Amino acid sequence: MRQLDSFVCGRRHAGGASQATLFNPTSEEPLATVSSDGIDFKAVVEHARSRGGPALRALTFGQRAGLIEQLSKLIHGAREELIELSIQNAGTTRGDAKFDIDGAIGTLAAYARYGAELGERKFLYDGAGVQLGRTARFWGEHVLAPREGVAVHINAFNFPAWNMMEKAACALLAGAPVIEKPGTPTALTAWRIAELVATSGVLPEGAFQFVCGSVGDLLDHLGPQDGLAFTGSSATAAKLRGHAVLVRHNVRVNLEADSLNAAVLAPDVEAGSDTYNLFLANVALDMTQKSGQKCTAVRRVFVPRERLEEIEAELRSSLAAIKVGDPADAATRMGPLASAAQLTDVRAGIQRLSSAARTACGGAAPIRERGYFVAPTLLVAADGAADVFHAEEVFGPVATLLPYDGSAAQAARLVARGGGSLVTSVYSNDAGFLEEAALGIAPWSGRVWLGSDKMAEQSLAPGMVLPAMVHGGPGRAGGGEELGALRGLAFYLQRTALQGFKGVIAPESFCARAATAK
Amino acid sequence: MRQLDSFVCGRRHAGGASQATLFNPTSEEPLATVSSDGIDFKAVVEHARSRGGPALRALTFGQRAGLIEQLSKLIHGAREELIELSIQNAGTTRGDAKFDIDGAIGTLAAYARYGAELGERKFLYDGAGVQLGRTARFWGEHVLAPREGVAVHINAFNFPAWNMMEKAACALLAGAPVIEKPGTPTALTAWRIAELVATSGVLPEGAFQFVCGSVGDLLDHLGPQDGLAFTGSSATAAKLRGHAVLVRHNVRVNLEADSLNAAVLAPDVEAGSDTYNLFLANVALDMTQKSGQKCTAVRRVFVPRERLEEIEAELRSSLAAIKVGDPADAATRMGPLASAAQLTDVRAGIQRLSSAARTACGGAAPIRERGYFVAPTLLVAADGAADVFHAEEVFGPVATLLPYDGSAAQAARLVARGGGSLVTSVYSNDAGFLEEAALGIAPWSGRVWLGSDKMAEQSLAPGMVLPAMVHGGPGRAGGGEELGALRGLAFYLQRTALQGFKGVIAPESFCARAATAK
Repeated sequence: MRQLDSFVCGRRHAGGASQATLFNPTSEEPLATVSSDGIDFKAVVEHARSRGGPALRALTFGQRAGLIEQLSKLIHGAREELIELSIQNAGTTRGDAKFDIDGAIGTLAAYARYGAELGERKFLYDGAGVQLGRTARFWGEHVLAPREGVAVHINAFNFPAWNMMEKAACALLAGAPVIEKPGTPTALTAWRIAELVATSGVLPEGAFQFVCGSVGDLLDHLGPQDGLAFTGSSATAAKLRGHAVLVRHNVRVNLEADSLNAAVLAPDVEAGSDTYNLFLANVALDMTQKSGQKCTAVRRVFVPRERLEEIEAELRSSLAAIKVGDPADAATRMGPLASAAQLTDVRAGIQRLSSAARTACGGAAPIRERGYFVAPTLLVAADGAADVFHAEEVFGPVATLLPYDGSAAQAARLVARGGGSLVTSVYSNDAGFLEEAALGIAPWSGRVWLGSDKMAEQSLAPGMVLPAMVHGGPGRAGGGEELGALRGLAFYLQRTALQGFKGVIAPESFCARAATAK
Repeated sequence: MRQLDSFVCGRRHAGGASQATLFNPTSEEPLATVSSDGIDFKAVVEHARSRGGPALRALTFGQRAGLIEQLSKLIHGAREELIELSIQNAGTTRGDAKFDIDGAIGTLAAYARYGAELGERKFLYDGAGVQLGRTARFWGEHVLAPREGVAVHINAFNFPAWNMMEKAACALLAGAPVIEKPGTPTALTAWRIAELVATSGVLPEGAFQFVCGSVGDLLDHLGPQDGLAFTGSSATAAKLRGHAVLVRHNVRVNLEADSLNAAVLAPDVEAGSDTYNLFLANVALDMTQKSGQKCTAVRRVFVPRERLEEIEAELRSSLAAIKVGDPADAATRMGPLASAAQLTDVRAGIQRLSSAARTACGGAAPIRERGYFVAPTLLVAADGAADVFHAEEVFGPVATLLPYDGSAAQAARLVARGGGSLVTSVYSNDAGFLEEAALGIAPWSGRVWLGSDKMAEQSLAPGMVLPAMVHGGPGRAGGGEELGALRGLAFYLQRTALQGFKGVIAPESFCARAATAK
């Protein structure tokens, strides 16, 4: 069986005895093994610090953007192969595989454009300068300069391509060497991308390393200039955040955790309207795309109480049309879950939700003899405020319809009960409702997506994470921030206040020369 | 003896049996006691959440700015009384007391101005909007909206007035109700300010609470919308950052910790020049102002090796002119340390540094029979790279002269050895030296202060924290950020991405109305 290498310290590392096995979640056949046995993680960090970091920081933002553009093209060149690997190892349909891989290609391309606009600069000015003395002679500026650390990225299993490359795009553009660790169950796609990157010679030595398997004692070697960015479960996120070494050295930590995302249907939305159809299509898409294994997928669907049955019937019918099966089959619209562990978790989660809800369609029961399949499952709660729906996240094709009283105020309060979400969508053509809901929800949701007739025809679904918009959310969602165009670079930069003679520190002076010249 | 009350849940709270005593550090006489016995901290948090938060968020930024302006005037009205209390309880000279109290007044006034410029708005737009669809119909914006939480501020003993009010200014302007806890040894000044604020009726009920004494189980009641900002030692900072409840709920934590700040004298600075005199004056000021008990005070002074003796002689002579004694005496230039514990720590620290340095003046020996006095102490290291100087912070009138080779590159490397500083000052008239040092030091220092002839006449000393400039630093300095004009509000706001019809979410549309109208 194939063993997936790591790429560390300038070489392939084959690993040793303690191996984890990757499966094809459709057939349950073993595909490959991973092992990080024998990796000297202290040396990995040192390699990034001593080789990758200085080499990246010797380049300007514009030059680094050029490298990122090459990475985008490199992955694009292997697109078909990567789609195949994703279908095999992640159980994704072709469409879902493209969502991940094209997401990686597109996000890299977007950051290449952002970086090109920054041009031949080595640090950025932050905001306008300010006079500090009696005259402008004593002056203040803020700059954003690359930190002298490494970026450790612990990525989620559900987007092996996109999640790794969206993190890498921001870090590399900011001048930080990366150490990438894929989610093990679906590591095959990430591994192939890493192999392409590591053997391409596009990036300076030490700028990109890839650890396939456990990260061992990697985190113990991080220090005050380093950053750890994690995407995954909120339980693991909390464990990382409390890690003694990270706490002791004030290592920056950015967490993006699964959350109880919500959709809200306002009472004004008429059946058959563009907004209505958009709502139904987006909920069904979120539930079934990547078999519901998206950190942005909707889990709680708030519907005015008197319309619960109507919406239930509509969604049941939409979901019934989703063909579940072998993702290699072109007619299939939803494949299996990514791993046996996921299947166990999702079934248990459906049962916990079912304690307070009835099943409109689907359920925890097996639907195929082989493979990690579960049916698209819609639950209907009698009480939209019951604790379980705001506490229990089921990371699969599962959502619950929750009744509310039709007011924006109650919708916002119920959304907040989830303790912090990545994204909340609100569907209405009533400007007052959208306004009240958006402002009430904003503190509790990293992104608020407002659906209405005027944008229905050209909107992108709320579950889609765009490089231009911030991705992350408060509280349960991890409290982190990624992407958001240049906002995503801040994690890897140090904001430093400069004070001194204006002729020394203002953008038109020598610092501007330093920014461009050397 | 006077007992200092807390002001919580809309009333005075006198405390109970387990009391801490505040002393006059000059006479060692007890002054007052504090006790937070019997405070129901869950109720304190709830009072802020249910009363203070909604009342503050019902106001616009401009309206909150008006309240902050009133607080500034309120404290200004009690300025003489507060100066007296500071001399009594903190052992500060009149000048040092003013530095603290005028700092509080001025920072509040600055934030009142910043807020007034924001005007009648309830949330802020962050950056420019972006087209997300084929046309501008599907649009993206980022907004900064007040979080629905409380701001807990655990403040340092060295600036009882300024440290409390600079934190409160940012939080209150952002719409966050505050719970302030002063450093116990010097709580008298903070307590009197709190009494003024609490009894003035300026702020809505629940917007300002004050816990005098231990915070008990306060932190256990924080949740995902809350924030904790701390100023103090790096050991306590690490403990707070790893607090299980804060980690579990992704409570925001902003830490500002004492650090090994540095000054660098470049080889080009000629004896007698403006820059030279500024360097000498600032180092002596930093060492002795507030008896060296400033988180921004210089601890490591890098001097070209061949000029070590010259600078030692200059500083010895400057320090000899500093009259140490009773701060109530107008001739006194430096008072005692703030507490007996500080005295013990500082003496022990001087002894540890002395293991690798000789004493140019001062030392650990007692200099008065009564009071927590220590002499201004200048040490001179033979080896500027010895570990102890980059690890051991002595929070008193103590600094070490460290030789370096005169290159900006080595200076930057040695500054970085401190693991992260709040501020680093560099003195030179060589643009190339300033440039290389500034860029090399920026990742390791939250503020870089560049001294030169051109700004010498009107500069403010590097130890001075200005509301317009970010205060905080990476790594050992805590990794936090305060102030920096509106940047200081971000900690209390949620950045949320909005996506939808441009006519709904763009600033010129209803959100602009929402921002102003309701």
